[in-house]
Amino acid sequence: MLLILHPDIDKQSEDYLATLKHLNALSGVTVKEHIVQGQQQQLTEIYLIGETKSLDTADMEALPAVERVIRISEEYRVLGRHHDDQRVSGFDFQGLRFDQESLHVFAGLCAVDTPEHVEIMLKTLAAHGQRCTRMGAYKPRTNPYAFQGHGKGCLPYVFELAGKYNMAAIAMEVTHESHIEEIDTCLEKCGRPTSVILQIGTRNTQNFELLKAIGRQQRYPALLKRGFGITLNESLNAAEYLASEGNAQVIFCLRGMKSEYGAPHRNMVDFSHIPVVKRLTRMPVCIDPSHSVGTRDHSPDKVMDIAHATAQGIVAGANMVLVDFHPAPTQALVDGPQALLLDELPRYLDDIALCRETYEKRRALWQ
Amino acid sequence: MLLILHPDIDKQSEDYLATLKHLNALSGVTVKEHIVQGQQQQLTEIYLIGETKSLDTADMEALPAVERVIRISEEYRVLGRHHDDQRVSGFDFQGLRFDQESLHVFAGLCAVDTPEHVEIMLKTLAAHGQRCTRMGAYKPRTNPYAFQGHGKGCLPYVFELAGKYNMAAIAMEVTHESHIEEIDTCLEKCGRPTSVILQIGTRNTQNFELLKAIGRQQRYPALLKRGFGITLNESLNAAEYLASEGNAQVIFCLRGMKSEYGAPHRNMVDFSHIPVVKRLTRMPVCIDPSHSVGTRDHSPDKVMDIAHATAQGIVAGANMVLVDFHPAPTQALVDGPQALLLDELPRYLDDIALCRETYEKRRALWQ
Amino acid sequence: MLLILHPDIDKQSEDYLATLKHLNALSGVTVKEHIVQGQQQQLTEIYLIGETKSLDTADMEALPAVERVIRISEEYRVLGRHHDDQRVSGFDFQGLRFDQESLHVFAGLCAVDTPEHVEIMLKTLAAHGQRCTRMGAYKPRTNPYAFQGHGKGCLPYVFELAGKYNMAAIAMEVTHESHIEEIDTCLEKCGRPTSVILQIGTRNTQNFELLKAIGRQQRYPALLKRGFGITLNESLNAAEYLASEGNAQVIFCLRGMKSEYGAPHRNMVDFSHIPVVKRLTRMPVCIDPSHSVGTRDHSPDKVMDIAHATAQGIVAGANMVLVDFHPAPTQALVDGPQALLLDELPRYLDDIALCRETYEKRRALWQ
Amino acid sequence: MLLILHPDIDKQSEDYLATLKHLNALSGVTVKEHIVQGQQQQLTEIYLIGETKSLDTADMEALPAVERVIRISEEYRVLGRHHDDQRVSGFDFQGLRFDQESLHVFAGLCAVDTPEHVEIMLKTLAAHGQRCTRMGAYKPRTNPYAFQGHGKGCLPYVFELAGKYNMAAIAMEVTHESHIEEIDTCLEKCGRPTSVILQIGTRNTQNFELLKAIGRQQRYPALLKRGFGITLNESLNAAEYLASEGNAQVIFCLRGMKSEYGAPHRNMVDFSHIPVVKRLTRMPVCIDPSHSVGTRDHSPDKVMDIAHATAQGIVAGANMVLVDFHPAPTQALVDGPQALLLDELPRYLDDIALCRETYEKRRALWQ
Repeated sequence: MLLILHPDIDKQSEDYLATLKHLNALSGVTVKEHIVQGQQQQLTEIYLIGETKSLDTADMEALPAVERVIRISEEYRVLGRHHDDQRVSGFDFQGLRFDQESLHVFAGLCAVDTPEHVEIMLKTLAAHGQRCTRMGAYKPRTNPYAFQGHGKGCLPYVFELAGKYNMAAIAMEVTHESHIEEIDTCLEKCGRPTSVILQIGTRNTQNFELLKAIGRQQRYPALLKRGFGITLNESLNAAEYLASEGNAQVIFCLRGMKSEYGAPHRNMVDFSHIPVVKRLTRMPVCIDPSHSVGTRDHSPDKVMDIAHATAQGIVAGANMVLVDFHPAPTQALVDGPQALLLDELPRYLDDIALCRETYEKRRALWQ
Repeated sequence: MLLILHPDIDKQSEDYLATLKHLNALSGVTVKEHIVQGQQQQLTEIYLIGETKSLDTADMEALPAVERVIRISEEYRVLGRHHDDQRVSGFDFQGLRFDQESLHVFAGLCAVDTPEHVEIMLKTLAAHGQRCTRMGAYKPRTNPYAFQGHGKGCLPYVFELAGKYNMAAIAMEVTHESHIEEIDTCLEKCGRPTSVILQIGTRNTQNFELLKAIGRQQRYPALLKRGFGITLNESLNAAEYLASEGNAQVIFCLRGMKSEYGAPHRNMVDFSHIPVVKRLTRMPVCIDPSHSVGTRDHSPDKVMDIAHATAQGIVAGANMVLVDFHPAPTQALVDGPQALLLDELPRYLDDIALCRETYEKRRALWQ
Repeated sequence: MLLILHPDIDKQSEDYLATLKHLNALSGVTVKEHIVQGQQQQLTEIYLIGETKSLDTADMEALPAVERVIRISEEYRVLGRHHDDQRVSGFDFQGLRFDQESLHVFAGLCAVDTPEHVEIMLKTLAAHGQRCTRMGAYKPRTNPYAFQGHGKGCLPYVFELAGKYNMAAIAMEVTHESHIEEIDTCLEKCGRPTSVILQIGTRNTQNFELLKAIGRQQRYPALLKRGFGITLNESLNAAEYLASEGNAQVIFCLRGMKSEYGAPHRNMVDFSHIPVVKRLTRMPVCIDPSHSVGTRDHSPDKVMDIAHATAQGIVAGANMVLVDFHPAPTQALVDGPQALLLDELPRYLDDIALCRETYEKRRALWQ
Repeated sequence: MLLILHPDIDKQSEDYLATLKHLNALSGVTVKEHIVQGQQQQLTEIYLIGETKSLDTADMEALPAVERVIRISEEYRVLGRHHDDQRVSGFDFQGLRFDQESLHVFAGLCAVDTPEHVEIMLKTLAAHGQRCTRMGAYKPRTNPYAFQGHGKGCLPYVFELAGKYNMAAIAMEVTHESHIEEIDTCLEKCGRPTSVILQIGTRNTQNFELLKAIGRQQRYPALLKRGFGITLNESLNAAEYLASEGNAQVIFCLRGMKSEYGAPHRNMVDFSHIPVVKRLTRMPVCIDPSHSVGTRDHSPDKVMDIAHATAQGIVAGANMVLVDFHPAPTQALVDGPQALLLDELPRYLDDIALCRETYEKRRALWQ
């Protein structure tokens, strides 16, 4: 780790002395000072060598004499994409491959409401060759008095119907570690006709205890949504919490950032970060156009903004799509108005296929 | 709840029909339509009467025909300040009063490191007549490989020393529901020489499961920090989660908002919201100048920015101050560089007393 | 205009009386009150009828008794897309059509440096069939001591070379109304071998005096960049300043929003707003991938983020692309590191053509 | 200037070669390379020596091999507070002293409407010993169809009445360079009974041409408001534009930042930056509580949020207050609802005096 001190700092100043005192007190770290003489000013650099991984950049940056901090060692130790990285990327799950090359669509219900809706949803997906879906049982809501999902009560019929319609994987949000066991127990009871990708929502991106609990098991992969109000770097560090506990089967999901600049969309769509996440880490990248856009509005070209956003994600190489459909949006208990209709599914899938083909041609073009 | 439709909406349009269909399908809700003829345009309003509390404003706002939604019923049902509100506000804890009139300073260690530092910190506080402190045992960190606090291992000596120096209350962050029991068990073992206010940090503001767990017990009050990336309204709704489960002893803490507009401060100081939180809710309001400002820098008047921010909070009526001190900041494991020094404590307390007196004079002036 | 008052407002309250007094004092406006009785509360609505166009929503919203304001009348009077709108959209310029259906690429130099670079740039564009370019003569810079562009000194050779290589239109930023005349005079002198689209940069989005000056002439169309720190609505209102003075030949340019959520990109790419701008207004929509992304970094698929962002814009229906190229980026005086290389032009144009074809197929799919 | 390259960069890599090529092509700059061997990785540093002032940090940071850039030379050359700075700070204007020690209140009309309102406003100010005021003649508005101020038509009576009531200085916004001459001509005609501080509003913070025009004259000082959507550093650089042209009589005004985190206030109050601006520059710091807060709401302690925000500014050392009053807010043409009432003036001034006294005591305490 390298600390750049303020230019022309006085070695007798309180700031300098306090900083050095702090650094020299760090255990397992050797402090080396280096002076650079510019034409106009002098620059002092401090190198910290040894056990610097546990040092926090922000803490060092806040030392009174320090101007900037450079971490020489690598970030996102497990999930990161490092120099000449030969480690295997991606993972197999339920006979499907998830990596930075693959593409899977997880269409389904934002919130499970009735067995009838689950069945017609899954039946329609199966009729269009889909093997994956999304089903929300546990719903965190801003208002404590709003509907919070049917919870474990709906799991048996969700899993049975998923098996009936040959769904390999369901993306399902969990908000408490006990949900992992509830899901596992119910799957076991049902004879494991399908399986689950554990989704961590935006409100829990930095709920490190939940991340660690999910990271401690390897049976179910994780789908981590980017957090609000924090940098991309901080959200990627949250993904590393999962990996640091032993579960590196992590998919990272872009879902828009809450910002007044995003209006009239629900959030500011952030799918331009697909290539960035692929460059910084080895995680597959998912997009959630429904929650990013949050409306069924369409432009004068008759294409819904949600379809445009999806196309933008696919054409830049997205590896997964999480999207809300509903057989009867007017009866949906959560986010009904942003759901696509079942009869829009074939066109939506065709649009994705077309954009995926375009992505592949584009990639060939730039080799 | 009132829905304002888009001006001049056509009653035969798909948007209108889909919206009405959705609304009529809601159970326990009566739909009443009202037409207003403007000079230039016509406005349609839909009133939803009955069980509208569980409806989500955002969901309604996303219906295709809807322009705006007005919730007639009240927000923050338990903690909110409503019309002609006669409910008792605030609470007593450990012989101390916490309400929108009181003022308490919780100075202490951001992160507990050694028993020696804890003792000298508490001894100094006691010498200046303080009965409250902050002590961090569980530390959530952005990077999974950074120091995460000594956890329950340090609780015995923290509580014993707190008793020795007559501390009535310790503000202590918890990041998992099991920490509540760890704290409770340890306090019981030690003979309850002190007690704890359970602090929920910014990363967990919308960790609703943790909030509900804390809300289910009444022995320990809660100190909820405002969340990053969400509106004030959403953070206040999170506080309501605590109350909705039965624990209305909640203090709301302003701690700055992460924003590039805040630089060179660590966060954008938000203490101008003190009167707003008091107006919207009946919670006491705490300020955290250390994490808001995040630096010991001072202006040419020799007053540190942290002291200026504290003064700004007190002079506008803050009810609690959470502030980092450390006997040897260079040895602090977390956030050392923003900590105040023990010999700055008397001046810091004098500054607070002076500003509090000014607040009281100001209040008298404006009656 | 409709004002919704706070629920259950007391007609004797100071807030109510002050509000009504303010409203009754407005000239040319009739005030009509309407009471709605909900099951739990009562709602009061005030209708303002007559000359309400000059009233500011924010002013009304700030009245003490007012909860929300709904403007019944239309926004973006000239440029907006209104109900059953039959007005002609778009414009012809230099033999080219600019509307919400067309697509033009304006590749070129962010800042003009030497006649040699201008010539090689234009020659390359011409060789690839391009008739449009971008050339920066006047450069606003954050730091007053940074290079500010060659100004009118470079106009003669820029225009002559543009004529030589058959460029129909040059997008050129102006920062002062005198630049319009400088450009006009120089074009006249050169015999008008080309023409100019006057570009207004982000720092001047709300420089209303400059907008009005550009709006007062009709010879040169305007390309208005979206502003930082303001809502999309406010930037669209700025465009309306141009039109309100008489020049409705306005192209609106998305160029990313400054936000810490955008890092490591220079700005947060906002191209998901293409369909939104098309829906709200009748302006053609331009994208500026160079300034949005700000880096030549590429993802592991070898495609640069700038190319990905461009593809995302085109596939969602963008009508114009403003993009930085440079024959020798290491010698560029401004933004060299984000410039594409001349030998990347053919692939870049092929990529655009491929994505445009995909957009057209997508549009057909969704009819 | 110092460029830190990416750790372990390969000297044969394209990124490295392109970067060096770019740097070596810079004229007047010598490039020196320095290698630092860490225990785990190697770090390469490039020093640029010579004419580096015109280089843009962002441009350098965007070079492919560069990780971070450190500018050794000084920022805000004229207005900045540098090491051991002995230059005289502040200025005298109309017999009044403006520097980082002084305090002046500029209460008045946001927008001039009638001579009667101007007179009663000024008469009231004079009765309370005030020598300064604010009067808005030119009003930039988001919507082109909103009232834009009476412009030069109202200047004669504003200046005459200011003279009659012995006002030394009027803060008046200008939005176009021609306004400077309009004001100057009118003052001259009236016999200069008062004078003007030229205010630059938030929408024009980076309207560099306007800043340069104001900077080219020295008769009238400038009051520059902080800009929306940009960093504090960028706003301070805008102030430097004034000084770089020759007018260093600049006051910097904090006025809140537009942000959804600020709601229900109009903007997010940023007065915690008072000590920061004083530390980074030698400019006096003004606060604008009216536009920051934007409402007359008050907390349960009966003190309006505007008064609380003002107190927060004064107690931290603000040097000037710009605040909206109106004799009849219901008739105000702009921002009436946020205006204070004339009979609130004495209490408002008493509150300021009390907080100023507290600031002085606080400063003495911390010496």
